[in-house]
Amino acid sequence: MDQQDLAMPDIAHFFEGVEKLLEIWFEESSSPTGDLRNITRPEWENLLRHVKCEIISFTKNDFIDAFLLSESSMFVSKRRWILKTCGTTTPLKCLEQLLKLAKVHGFSVISDIFYSRKNFTRPEVQNSPHKGFYEEVTYLDTIFPEGRSYCLGSINLECWYLYTFSKPELKALPDIIVEENNIDADPDQTIEILMQNLDKNVMSVFSKTHCSTGTEATAHSGIDQILPDMVIDDFLFDPCGYSMNGINEHGEYMTIHITPEEKFSYVSFESNVALNNYTKLINQVIKTFKPGKFIVTIFANKSSLAYETMKELEIEYSTLSNWKRTDMQCCNFPSYNLLFAQYSRAVEIST
Amino acid sequence: MDQQDLAMPDIAHFFEGVEKLLEIWFEESSSPTGDLRNITRPEWENLLRHVKCEIISFTKNDFIDAFLLSESSMFVSKRRWILKTCGTTTPLKCLEQLLKLAKVHGFSVISDIFYSRKNFTRPEVQNSPHKGFYEEVTYLDTIFPEGRSYCLGSINLECWYLYTFSKPELKALPDIIVEENNIDADPDQTIEILMQNLDKNVMSVFSKTHCSTGTEATAHSGIDQILPDMVIDDFLFDPCGYSMNGINEHGEYMTIHITPEEKFSYVSFESNVALNNYTKLINQVIKTFKPGKFIVTIFANKSSLAYETMKELEIEYSTLSNWKRTDMQCCNFPSYNLLFAQYSRAVEIST
Repeated sequence: MDQQDLAMPDIAHFFEGVEKLLEIWFEESSSPTGDLRNITRPEWENLLRHVKCEIISFTKNDFIDAFLLSESSMFVSKRRWILKTCGTTTPLKCLEQLLKLAKVHGFSVISDIFYSRKNFTRPEVQNSPHKGFYEEVTYLDTIFPEGRSYCLGSINLECWYLYTFSKPELKALPDIIVEENNIDADPDQTIEILMQNLDKNVMSVFSKTHCSTGTEATAHSGIDQILPDMVIDDFLFDPCGYSMNGINEHGEYMTIHITPEEKFSYVSFESNVALNNYTKLINQVIKTFKPGKFIVTIFANKSSLAYETMKELEIEYSTLSNWKRTDMQCCNFPSYNLLFAQYSRAVEIST
Repeated sequence: MDQQDLAMPDIAHFFEGVEKLLEIWFEESSSPTGDLRNITRPEWENLLRHVKCEIISFTKNDFIDAFLLSESSMFVSKRRWILKTCGTTTPLKCLEQLLKLAKVHGFSVISDIFYSRKNFTRPEVQNSPHKGFYEEVTYLDTIFPEGRSYCLGSINLECWYLYTFSKPELKALPDIIVEENNIDADPDQTIEILMQNLDKNVMSVFSKTHCSTGTEATAHSGIDQILPDMVIDDFLFDPCGYSMNGINEHGEYMTIHITPEEKFSYVSFESNVALNNYTKLINQVIKTFKPGKFIVTIFANKSSLAYETMKELEIEYSTLSNWKRTDMQCCNFPSYNLLFAQYSRAVEIST
């Protein structure tokens, strides 16, 4: 990722790869022309100023607009908005402006909200309202009074936080109505794989000393083989760090962000690709990046292919060789199931 | 429950019914005479001084010793110790003494530890180290360095905390060894039902104005019908409040504690009775006490009848009529599965 603080002495050099992830779904617009993709580039640039990041690349197809940011990614489709930002960015600070822009473009009803992140490596360097999960929840509660907040994994060791609507009700908000989830919703699923303590030979690919372009790093690392139907927009940062967005003809996306420095290496993989079994994909991602430990989260709504098979995945996960599952939790929300699992290498392999 | 502060003006009258629950399993003793039930009454009384509660009644059978306490209950079997205390008691403060006593009586290896509680209604009146879950975890970590801590339910609304060994390893402790869980463990399961906002007509039974003895309250309320094979030891507090322990010929226990005051009514039900389906039991408990909302937790180890059927329970729970499930989570620990579910009345019924 883009690292502004390289001029500082090495002892102080640190970059928080762990992202804050916001996903908002709006109810179908009553206006036939309602589409979040009608929001203009200057409007997005203005909104992202609140987050403290910038657009560095852009691709699109008939279903989805994909922005590469100086810190991670933004995806915009007709009624869904995803913002994923790392470092010390402040994504929650753009929420009010996002809701205003959405309203102008035909969307005043929110159906689902997810805000999630892993525990930060260094929470003390974050800016308000991201200094802690309680501060984030307090901030979100001022905008969405019906949210629920969760901590999965072990609070005192490593965990993953989630703020979501799990009890949606008809509710009047300042200019925004939040209403009951539609059970006949479109199929939706999201898988995230958050990796740490990565193999340093694999990580060395994602620096300007080894590759001159993002495209070279994408091919050399095997990222282009993970989901081969994705059209990839990639970026290699100077002196190191990597981001990519991929979109395919079904409107699905994938996104990978890499902080390669050995002392705080971090790689995130995320996709909404519809599969009825994620074991093969997880194995491919793990084989590509060789982490020392990782977290997997899978969200699937009742219409998703993945929904019924999550129970099976619980069992299949445990057969991943060389990996010890240190935690597994499952949550049932009104319209989504969530599976959370944490793994570390059973035997440390020196790299 | 025993309420010391009745002399205070009514506006300040409050009793924390929510219990702190500690359960410790020791590995089989190498000494053939090793048995926690050899710990003497004066030794227990001395230990409970650290907790700030007293023994008020005692029953036993061939398998289990059951103590009624001024604040809840203690159960002692050969290698398992359970302490459940409410109010402003400090159960964690007796841990070091418990480990010393266990060692004297043949047990120096801990196989499982569970410390759990619902969020307090008034955390600010608790004493250290129970002023918050972080303080409790910090305290437990000084004694058991391999513990993991969890928060189930919604952090910002209502939740249930758990501290447990989920990654047991051979570990040297000051005079105590904690080792790998035995997969061939005895079958074990625990169900808890924690109820609030209870029906005031039902609660009125548990006061001296309605009943003169615990036995009368037990029969009048239908508590003796919940698990009819239990031999019951009950106590009615003055002016109100109720506790009972039940033990049966299989060495199983049940325990119920009632804080009936309308402003902070609370009833807890707990049992380790082995059933392959808990739906009927849950329905009977709910019908007996008529809560406005409740939490169910079920622990089951791999040898338990309940282990395989917890998946079914996930579905069956949702059919409880008139109840809206506001949360459900499932955790897989190395030797136990845990199911957590939270319900509130779908339609408020005036009482």
